[in-house]
Amino acid sequence: MNNLNHLIQKILIFRQKRNWEKFHNPKNLAISLSIEANELLEKFQWLNEKESQEIIKNQNLKKEIEEEIADVFYYILLLSYDLKIDLEKAFKEKMKENEKKYPVKKAKGKALKYNKL
Amino acid sequence: MNNLNHLIQKILIFRQKRNWEKFHNPKNLAISLSIEANELLEKFQWLNEKESQEIIKNQNLKKEIEEEIADVFYYILLLSYDLKIDLEKAFKEKMKENEKKYPVKKAKGKALKYNKL
Amino acid sequence: MNNLNHLIQKILIFRQKRNWEKFHNPKNLAISLSIEANELLEKFQWLNEKESQEIIKNQNLKKEIEEEIADVFYYILLLSYDLKIDLEKAFKEKMKENEKKYPVKKAKGKALKYNKL
Amino acid sequence: MNNLNHLIQKILIFRQKRNWEKFHNPKNLAISLSIEANELLEKFQWLNEKESQEIIKNQNLKKEIEEEIADVFYYILLLSYDLKIDLEKAFKEKMKENEKKYPVKKAKGKALKYNKL
Repeated sequence: MNNLNHLIQKILIFRQKRNWEKFHNPKNLAISLSIEANELLEKFQWLNEKESQEIIKNQNLKKEIEEEIADVFYYILLLSYDLKIDLEKAFKEKMKENEKKYPVKKAKGKALKYNKL
Repeated sequence: MNNLNHLIQKILIFRQKRNWEKFHNPKNLAISLSIEANELLEKFQWLNEKESQEIIKNQNLKKEIEEEIADVFYYILLLSYDLKIDLEKAFKEKMKENEKKYPVKKAKGKALKYNKL
Repeated sequence: MNNLNHLIQKILIFRQKRNWEKFHNPKNLAISLSIEANELLEKFQWLNEKESQEIIKNQNLKKEIEEEIADVFYYILLLSYDLKIDLEKAFKEKMKENEKKYPVKKAKGKALKYNKL
Repeated sequence: MNNLNHLIQKILIFRQKRNWEKFHNPKNLAISLSIEANELLEKFQWLNEKESQEIIKNQNLKKEIEEEIADVFYYILLLSYDLKIDLEKAFKEKMKENEKKYPVKKAKGKALKYNKL
């Protein structure tokens, strides 16, 4: 996937210049991903459902959320690269599995895990 | 970004067929992201550093990790779409900020948060 | 705190019998805590606010939540023990700090972080 | 459990004075728990295993960790109270289940989930 490679290159150059490879074993990157996902979650913590829907109108909050989403994306790209995972391919395969795990007939309108359908 | 749009389209069709839009307010998607990031983290939980480096050789574990990474990617794509965030643009802007927050001279070889550099 | 010590003793015996000390460095225990907190969060993932309030009436779900809360508590107790932290004392000190960070006059009725009050 | 009740009372008074009950539905408290667990995890993020073992000697870091552990404990206590869960009882019951799920013979020296033993 050309575009993802292009983004991954940016991270690799950034990392190499700072000599950070030594900190980035896959376990540490997975930890970072969880931490960043929770910094993102914190932006939504006290919003009720209506407020959560209206974020788009709040330019400051939207900007903060963009930065946190970018951080999560950064670590997914980097972790995929270091583990030699083709992220786009992995995604497409998982979508095929999801099609099987959540057949439309059973899953329609229900927020249940596949093993409870 | 053509490729990301292409992936997002897959999710939107999947969601629409199952009538799941009603569950997917941004707050719930951010929760899902944290949960999936932790399912991914669980794959690394008891590995020591050396074992973490050697995941690539373990085909079964690598496959499990691919599926969890795909789940995280799914929710990032969907959350970005619902909040009208251009994920690629947000990422590039964040990388520019990171360049400023972590200047090579100060950050080289150090795993410190920018406010402790 | 006698009661907490009593609970910690249960964990230590359980761990020693299984020879698990070697896996339990503090970093790994902190990872476990995040994973368990997210297994707990998963129980609430798709509930709306009203449903979240009514959990108490759903005996099956309540039982599942109890088990996840117990898992989180397990790792807090164990991590505190391994780091020689007196959990009750740490809690009381933090409550004193919270009193200062969130003075009633400023914080009343507002869900804001102390640095935004 | 007298001691836990004593701690819970501190939180309830703190909350009531600030009129925060309205934000604290169980779903939001479970979110807070995950966020706090990840703030704790962040303290360990870049430590290697040896450094993780030596935290006790680093007074500043230990103090930071104490504060984060206290935050996690705060939300477990509060969530248990709001869901009318007896935390000590839930813990003891889970320990009994763990005894069954991880029999000494099978689990000794192995960091495997019960369903992989």
